[in-house]
Parts: sequence; structure tokens; C-alpha cells
Amino acid sequence: MIITANNPNRKSWLKVDENSDFPIQNIPFGVFITRDDIITIGSRIGDFAIDLGAFHQLGYFEGIPLTDDMFLQDNLNDFIADGRKTWRLVRNRIAEVFDVTNGSLRDNAEHKDKIIFRMDEVEMLLPVAVGDYTDFYASKEHATNVGSLFRDPENALLPNWLHIPIGYHGRSSSIIPSGTPIRRPYGQTKPSEGSNKPNFGPSKLLDFELEMAFITTDANVLGERIPIEEAEEYIFGLVQFNDWSARDIQAWEYVPLGPFLGKSFASTISPWIVTLDALEPFRTDNPKQVHEPLSYLKQKGKGSYDIHLQVGIQPENGEETVVANSNFKYMYWTMAQQLAHHTVNGCPVEAGDMMGSGTISGPTKDSFGSMLELTWKGQNPITLKDGTTRKFINDNDTVIMRAHCKNDQVRIGFGECVGKILPAK
Amino acid sequence: MIITANNPNRKSWLKVDENSDFPIQNIPFGVFITRDDIITIGSRIGDFAIDLGAFHQLGYFEGIPLTDDMFLQDNLNDFIADGRKTWRLVRNRIAEVFDVTNGSLRDNAEHKDKIIFRMDEVEMLLPVAVGDYTDFYASKEHATNVGSLFRDPENALLPNWLHIPIGYHGRSSSIIPSGTPIRRPYGQTKPSEGSNKPNFGPSKLLDFELEMAFITTDANVLGERIPIEEAEEYIFGLVQFNDWSARDIQAWEYVPLGPFLGKSFASTISPWIVTLDALEPFRTDNPKQVHEPLSYLKQKGKGSYDIHLQVGIQPENGEETVVANSNFKYMYWTMAQQLAHHTVNGCPVEAGDMMGSGTISGPTKDSFGSMLELTWKGQNPITLKDGTTRKFINDNDTVIMRAHCKNDQVRIGFGECVGKILPAK
Repeated sequence: MIITANNPNRKSWLKVDENSDFPIQNIPFGVFITRDDIITIGSRIGDFAIDLGAFHQLGYFEGIPLTDDMFLQDNLNDFIADGRKTWRLVRNRIAEVFDVTNGSLRDNAEHKDKIIFRMDEVEMLLPVAVGDYTDFYASKEHATNVGSLFRDPENALLPNWLHIPIGYHGRSSSIIPSGTPIRRPYGQTKPSEGSNKPNFGPSKLLDFELEMAFITTDANVLGERIPIEEAEEYIFGLVQFNDWSARDIQAWEYVPLGPFLGKSFASTISPWIVTLDALEPFRTDNPKQVHEPLSYLKQKGKGSYDIHLQVGIQPENGEETVVANSNFKYMYWTMAQQLAHHTVNGCPVEAGDMMGSGTISGPTKDSFGSMLELTWKGQNPITLKDGTTRKFINDNDTVIMRAHCKNDQVRIGFGECVGKILPAK
Repeated sequence: MIITANNPNRKSWLKVDENSDFPIQNIPFGVFITRDDIITIGSRIGDFAIDLGAFHQLGYFEGIPLTDDMFLQDNLNDFIADGRKTWRLVRNRIAEVFDVTNGSLRDNAEHKDKIIFRMDEVEMLLPVAVGDYTDFYASKEHATNVGSLFRDPENALLPNWLHIPIGYHGRSSSIIPSGTPIRRPYGQTKPSEGSNKPNFGPSKLLDFELEMAFITTDANVLGERIPIEEAEEYIFGLVQFNDWSARDIQAWEYVPLGPFLGKSFASTISPWIVTLDALEPFRTDNPKQVHEPLSYLKQKGKGSYDIHLQVGIQPENGEETVVANSNFKYMYWTMAQQLAHHTVNGCPVEAGDMMGSGTISGPTKDSFGSMLELTWKGQNPITLKDGTTRKFINDNDTVIMRAHCKNDQVRIGFGECVGKILPAK
């Protein structure tokens, strides 16, 4: 099927700013509450939210096999479970109806009133009910930095890292949409020198982790695996992802079973899922891999995407300071490799599962994806525009992440992934 | 509210064998498909399955506030979310209706035909849609054994273990009900000596882990914690749990983020959730803790339950050999401590979440909860009744776990938690 929604020359009859993340070539999917308090699945063009529940009820998806209530739901799971053919038909149709030359909705004021909202009239919710959430650890620079900081700079990468897309299970229940404030978590931390009683209190080393995450559809049943050649067919799209981390809680708890409460207090995602189809024009090579991967991990062609990433810190009542610029293409292991690995043992992957990339750090110091790395464990504090310094994240700081792709013709972005840290209770 | 369902003197008009796990004092909850292909929530007395969907439709819950379709569902999540008062009203009513002195259903042949099935007429399904699944590591003997085998017998317990109920997130999508066969998983394992390329193939060290798991209800919202005094109010009940483990896959992957594919190929649970209320007569002391717990982990009173646990291995066409006898009361950390710890950072716990105990090993060699420990990493193979030996689990072996409580008056059990290992594809 031709992805006509990706046509770079198409313009919409809805106004789109030049630097918008949401031109008519994006057509992401999300869930929102309208001004009438109705929860619906929707899309976005420019600064307009499109109510796909109303769009469908008013007949604009005619000819596409969809259940009547497909979009009148509080999550995208059923739509995602319908599979790639449906996603493409729906995305192509939305592009067509909002094409500047198409008058069907453009010239119907009554329908427009029911379907189109200004973004400031709606409240974005979580786009999916996340079943299982896995977080990978796929940036070589990040793994090397962390290994240098906590273990041995000479042998920073562990022996398995170059062979396995290392990952672990995370907590689904604390995944929240952009904008939800986060309480600084309490927890146990290492005993002070000379004591054998752990300390307890609000985390003192609260950090962000700059990540992207992909959302899957039903892919396999128990006992079956996904061949790497097919893996991308099961990826619906991506969100930006801040895997908040309490470094002091994590350091005390994580041996031998991995991070737990140091992560599970909150994980923020951007509310619009940008489809893998929309990102296709930005496909790029993934880094050359040091060892030849085992055959189930061998991927042909360009396995990554050129997505610019940015992190800013905004103090209470202050101006934002950009503290990192990175790129999704720095990831050593690709999404297809991650999905093939995840299922090689027969583990089922389902619609609405989420897989985080792990912190994305690039080769240069300003491209590191966490305060831990940017300040090198607090040794080199960052000075913000207001003159204050940060080793980690302070109370009432807001962390703002952004992600976008851009070529000569089009810019496709993710909007913002924002979270403010409230003082511990 | 008095838990009249626990009355040890009550008899049912349904026949119950003397050694049944399911006397009228148990009244567990599960989900099954009836002979008419209807999926319903049900309970069990003796070898009879009780269709609670039909029981409710025919008016036997009259006076208890329940939605009409409460039991006509394919999982218990909504019922569990209704909270402890509802669970108690429902369990008390079932006990009353099936009391030998109560003729209302006993003498109504038409209703009995709609409500009561023989267990061999129904197929048990997963009782809950597990949202998040956490596995703890709460047996001191198990942690000591594993530490001795893989690290240092002199310092077998890691420094954090005596202070933290160590846990990690597991995979929900591969939790399966008792009876579902399991394919031996493929995976990467450590490179052979002299090579730097990992091996790949079916796991050679497939193991069981003898566990119990508890199912929670909605307990807290993001940013709030559950005080330990209230923790048990949010525990609906327990199942028996086999946390299948591929030791060779796990050994190569687990540093530094914990077990992943070595576990996520399958986790088997017994299909009936035995309520915490039903276990109340078997409450017992938990082991004395070496260090005084931090205040958020301090629990008053008896924190554990006296549940006898057993594991058997049955070779293809052979007789079962019991290889381990253990007890839930050996757990160092209690369920209340686990739940208080899990939420101390503000992580939300929801209806249908499942928390595994971790492998339960007792103080003696025949009470260890895994082949890893029972054979001491294969050094002391176990001889089965058919004369064959086992270091780990072979293809076509069936592992059978059982759990029950018993006092002078009543025996409350979990039935069986069974899984057969099929050869790798």
C-alpha cells in the first residue's frame, strides 16, 4: 500500500506554522478529553486536535473496515491491534480529507465544529493502556559512561553488552502523560560511612533519562518468535520518553536484580504517537556493530531514524536552559533487533506494549542523555541561564524534552515531553 | 464484618472429599469456560465448579450491591477492584447458600443445573488480567544459596538484602494458567572457553522456582504510599506460582539490569485465587529479622501464613517423584512489607497486579525451591522413581506444585500448579 499520507508536497486547509511538529505529513495518534468532556481518540494538524470519534461517526472513514466505536475509546489499543493495513488506510484518509484541495469537511461548518478543536481546548491523556513496558539499554555511549562512572573505566562495557540488546522490565502503572507533575520519591539509600543502617528520605539525586519508546501491536503467541525481517511490521509508532531516575535509590537497590523503585515512581511520555510510517523519510544507518550479531539479530538495510533530541531545564519562574542535544540514530541496537531479541525465547508481545530505548547519549559531552553523565556524577555542575547551578534536578524544576525529524521538505516532530518535580511530601 | 465463610464447623450439601483443597471454608475465585462455552467467574467446592455469573443472575446475591455483569467477565479485575467489603459479602453468601442446612439452591434442580458443573466439565483460564507483575526475592535461604553458588559463600547475602525486600519487575504477557505446556526457550548463553562469541540454542539449564504470588486491588495513586498497617487490606488473595527459569540464559544476560529472557518465556500460576481471608486461620509468625526494619517496614503481629508447599517431577509416562517440601512461612520479608516497600516511592498498585514471593527455600536441603539449589548447580543430581536422574528439567517432564494449609479442623489448598516442558522447536 502506498503511504500517500507521507506526500511531502501536500498542504492542509488547516493552518500549520512553518516550525510546527505536526504538518499534515505527521498525522500522529493520541487520546484527549474535548471541551465537552468526551474522551476520544484523535489526531493533530498544526495546533488543531481532530476528534476521530466524531470524524468516524460523520462518515469520513467510509469504506474502511472499522468497528463503530473504534475511536470512541480511552486508549488506542484496539486500533493498534487492528494492524498496519488499518493504520495506513486511516492515516491516508485523514491526509486526504484535510488536503487543501478537499472541500468535504473544509466547507462543512457544522462538521468542523464537531471534529476540530484548538489544542488549548483539549486535555491530552495517555495514548495507550500499556500492558508490559520494557526498557532497553541500547546506547553504547550511555552504557560506557555509566560503566566508567560506577565500575571500571578500562572495562566500562560489560562482556554481554556488545552481543545482547540488554533490557529489563519496567513498571507500567507509573507511566504518565506529559504535563503530569511528579513528587520527588522517598526511598532507602546506602548507609552513611561507619553505619550499617540505610538512610531513608527524599531522593537527593533525581535525574531524567532522555529516551524514545516504541509501541507495538500483537506480534506473536507464547512460544513463537518474531523474525527480525518482520519486526518493524509490529511497531505502531514512537513517543518521546523521560525515564525519571532516583540515582541514590537505584544505586542501593539494583544489585542483583536491576533497577526497581529508583525508576518506578514515574515515567513520562509525550502524548502523540508518531507512526513509524511517518518517520520513514528519516530512516538512516545505525552505528556499525563491533561484533557480527548472531543470526537472529542480523538486520539488513538502514535500521535507525534521524531524530533530533533535546533536553531543557526550566527553574520555577525562570527561563529554560537547553542542557543536551542528542539523536536517536546514536542507538547501537535498533528497534527491530530489540523486538527480535525480546521474543527469541517465545515471550509474547501485545498491542499497547511499550519498549524504551534506554538513555540516548551521543559521542560528545553535550549530547549525553542524563544529568549523571552531563555533570559526570555531579563533578561538573551545569550553570543555568538564571545563574543557578544543577548537579541533578531540583524541586520545582521542569524538564522539557523535544524530538523532531527534518529534511528539505518536511519537519515531523513529537511535541513536548514535560514533567515538573514537586517537593517530597 | 464477621467472616462467616470461615466457620470451621460448616458442612456443604455438595460432596467434599476429606483431603480436598476446596472445602466450603475455602471459596476461592477463578475464571472458567463452561460446557456451554460460556466464560464466567466462578468458585469451587470439592470437585464442583460454581458459575457465579449464573448464581448472580438467578438472584442468589440479592441484597449485595453488585453490577449485573460483575461475574460475566473473563477476569476478576473489576470484582477485585470493588474492594474487601464486597469480597467478604460475596464469600459469606456463597458459604450460606451451600451450607448443608440451606435448601434454596440445594432443592432447586433447575438452578443447580445452571450453576453447578463438575470440574472435569470446565476449563480453567487465567483468573486475572495481570497489569504489572513484580517478583520479590524474599527467602533468605534462597538468596544465601544463590549467593553461595554464584558469588562468595562467605558473603553470600548482598549488603542491601537484609534491609530491602528486593524485587524486580517481571513480564505479565507470559503468565499462563496451570496446564498450559511450555516450549523450552532459545537464547544466548555465555561464550565457550576460548571463544568470544556467545552460544545460541535451546536452554540447557531449565529450572522451576517454587513461589506463591499475591493479587492486589487498587491501593494508591501516583505519589502516595501504602502504610504497612493497611497493606493487607489491599491483598485479595494468593495463587501458587512457578517462575520458570532458564539458568544459562539468565546467567549471561542479567548483569547489570537483572533477569529478562531467562524468565519471560513462561510463568505458571494455579487457577484459583485463595483469598487472604480464607488463609486467616493459618496466620503465623514470620522469621525474626536480623536488623530492625526501617519504620515504613515495621509490621506488628504475625506477618506470615503456614502454607505447606511441595514440588514433584513427573517424567513422560512415568510416576511423579516429590523433590521438595517447603513452607511459605520461611519467607523473610512478609507480603505487607513487600507492598509497603513497593509503594514507598509513590508507585501505584492496581487491581490485578501480581507480586511473586520469589523462590521459597527452607533451612533443610529437601526444602529448597529450585533444581539449582536442590542439585547444587547439578553437582548432586536427583534420582527419580523411574531410576533416571535430573540436574535440571528435561523435555517432556511435568513439574507439579501443590500448596495447602491444615489445622485440626480444616484444610485449605490451592489445587495444583502444573506445567509440562515441550522440546524446543
